Amino acid sequence: MRATVMFGAGDVHIETVPDARLIEPTDALVVVTRAAICGSDLWPYKRMEYSETGRPMGHEAIGIVEAVGADVRSVRVGNLVVMPFAYSDGTCVFCREGLHTSCIHGGFFGTVDIPGAQAEAVRVPQADGTLVVLPVGADDALMPSLLTLSDVMGTGHHAAVAAKVGPGKTAAVVGDGAVGLCGVIAARRLGAEQIIILGRHPDRIALAREFGATDIVSERGEEGVERVRELTGGLGVHAVLECVGLEQSMRTALGIARPGGAVGRVGVPQDETLPASQPAFYNNVTVGGGPAPCRAYIEELLPDVLEGLIEPGRVFDRVVRLDEVPDGYRAMNEREAIKVLIKF
Amino acid sequence: MRATVMFGAGDVHIETVPDARLIEPTDALVVVTRAAICGSDLWPYKRMEYSETGRPMGHEAIGIVEAVGADVRSVRVGNLVVMPFAYSDGTCVFCREGLHTSCIHGGFFGTVDIPGAQAEAVRVPQADGTLVVLPVGADDALMPSLLTLSDVMGTGHHAAVAAKVGPGKTAAVVGDGAVGLCGVIAARRLGAEQIIILGRHPDRIALAREFGATDIVSERGEEGVERVRELTGGLGVHAVLECVGLEQSMRTALGIARPGGAVGRVGVPQDETLPASQPAFYNNVTVGGGPAPCRAYIEELLPDVLEGLIEPGRVFDRVVRLDEVPDGYRAMNEREAIKVLIKF
Repeated sequence: MRATVMFGAGDVHIETVPDARLIEPTDALVVVTRAAICGSDLWPYKRMEYSETGRPMGHEAIGIVEAVGADVRSVRVGNLVVMPFAYSDGTCVFCREGLHTSCIHGGFFGTVDIPGAQAEAVRVPQADGTLVVLPVGADDALMPSLLTLSDVMGTGHHAAVAAKVGPGKTAAVVGDGAVGLCGVIAARRLGAEQIIILGRHPDRIALAREFGATDIVSERGEEGVERVRELTGGLGVHAVLECVGLEQSMRTALGIARPGGAVGRVGVPQDETLPASQPAFYNNVTVGGGPAPCRAYIEELLPDVLEGLIEPGRVFDRVVRLDEVPDGYRAMNEREAIKVLIKF
Repeated sequence: MRATVMFGAGDVHIETVPDARLIEPTDALVVVTRAAICGSDLWPYKRMEYSETGRPMGHEAIGIVEAVGADVRSVRVGNLVVMPFAYSDGTCVFCREGLHTSCIHGGFFGTVDIPGAQAEAVRVPQADGTLVVLPVGADDALMPSLLTLSDVMGTGHHAAVAAKVGPGKTAAVVGDGAVGLCGVIAARRLGAEQIIILGRHPDRIALAREFGATDIVSERGEEGVERVRELTGGLGVHAVLECVGLEQSMRTALGIARPGGAVGRVGVPQDETLPASQPAFYNNVTVGGGPAPCRAYIEELLPDVLEGLIEPGRVFDRVVRLDEVPDGYRAMNEREAIKVLIKF
């Protein structure tokens, strides 16, 4: 079959690889109908060292179940399913607590053992725990929004939950990428009164406004912090959604949090340490977040997508075929596209 | 009057200083009957650069109100009062949220403007918001425990709250100083099922056991982390109370937190950055805490002290007179004493 493989920074190709197939009795084989390129795929796209064997890419997909292992009970051949970016058994102590990304028998897609979803088909381990059957047709107009439940919408929601967004609170979103935009949706959905987005790309900012952002801060660094303080009566915001993962963005996030506030971080941290430990301490600012347990959130978010109450699929502003995926990476990396959907 | 002044590392003296007096109409003048030396006083005792004018020390006290300013309403001359280590107006937006340490009109004792409480008397700004009248006599046997409400018991409680201790949860306390020991009391009081203390001083460990610690880990660093994991079925603990403030203790705290767990830090951080940002992220571990809003907690903890349900005053294992305070610093710094009470 054909699949996306990254061999090094900027070096992504569509390769012919061995067909995905069932290995464990708990596996499902899913023929991919929609996949996506993730902001987190851009970190290796910028930095990966050359690898001869390469890394199979992709962890967001919707598809049709083609085969299931002998132990699979809740998913059937022919089902249209969405997969979260992590697989999980759904029964371990962490899954029962709703933290599927720490599943004791779980893991992540896009490794040599568990190849990626930017491919014609994908093997899904722990199919019963991982996959969610979608109650729509395979070409439903909701496909883009449903696809965001794999990762980007769940991740924006996780940032909002970790930042303790709630009714009447003030929120700020650091980063105007697809996750930040979904963070705006999540903050509004959870009742935030004021939603400030920090970003400067006109197309993204326009979308953020439509999603519910009430204020835009295009300044960066200390100036951006000052601007947010001006917008919040000098206090800072209750809830900061950190959707980038860089030292500077975290410093901004901690700088704009109000005393007693919380930063929910979902941008994959690129540094070993967290800055501004002392200011965060003196202000009693909480830092939470991590890989989003999207599997847990699908149950909460899916009804809103099906009812059209939220439209996170609008973050996809480019659609490519599999053989155009390398150009999709380039376009996202150059910020020509917010997020790329792959249609099979 | 006589007061404790620190001039540099290891250089503490009892000096004759100008009498404390009312300055603002919201002030109270309190004659100190009990004060204490705090673990946080040991940071300057170890590191302070020489200062000709010196720093007036102390932020924990019980005393008798000798005079009040014209605007003071809730405190009267003759009242026996306890002061938290921060003063606060009790009415600002942060005080109303219970975060008195971020009071807009508040601040901390032990500066040139607001001198310290290891002195014969102390000026207490924002007296109505700051002071709590104690319903006991000035020589009640509960004095040591009541004095801990100024800081150390409230701080241990804050660590437990920030670490999200709750009924049936597992907790670990990093640090066997007076704050850590009060953290054990707080964790037990909030319902933790297993309470592991990381420490190695036999007298402190013995007290920790009496306060409710169920397990002792004397190993440090990676070995300590391994030992806690063994004690928790490989998972780590839900709630970690970080009561030290060093890079190594925070690394240990993050290492023993269970995925989805929380670290409540109350040890004043001695470093600009927080370690292990990436492991904390991948495990969705939350880091919270800061200066404890002891004023808010007095209302919750005072009844338990009065009823004898908790006995945090047992952390005081040495009593000195004011002129012996320099030796009290030495004794605490050399870990000869857990915590020193100053009796006037």
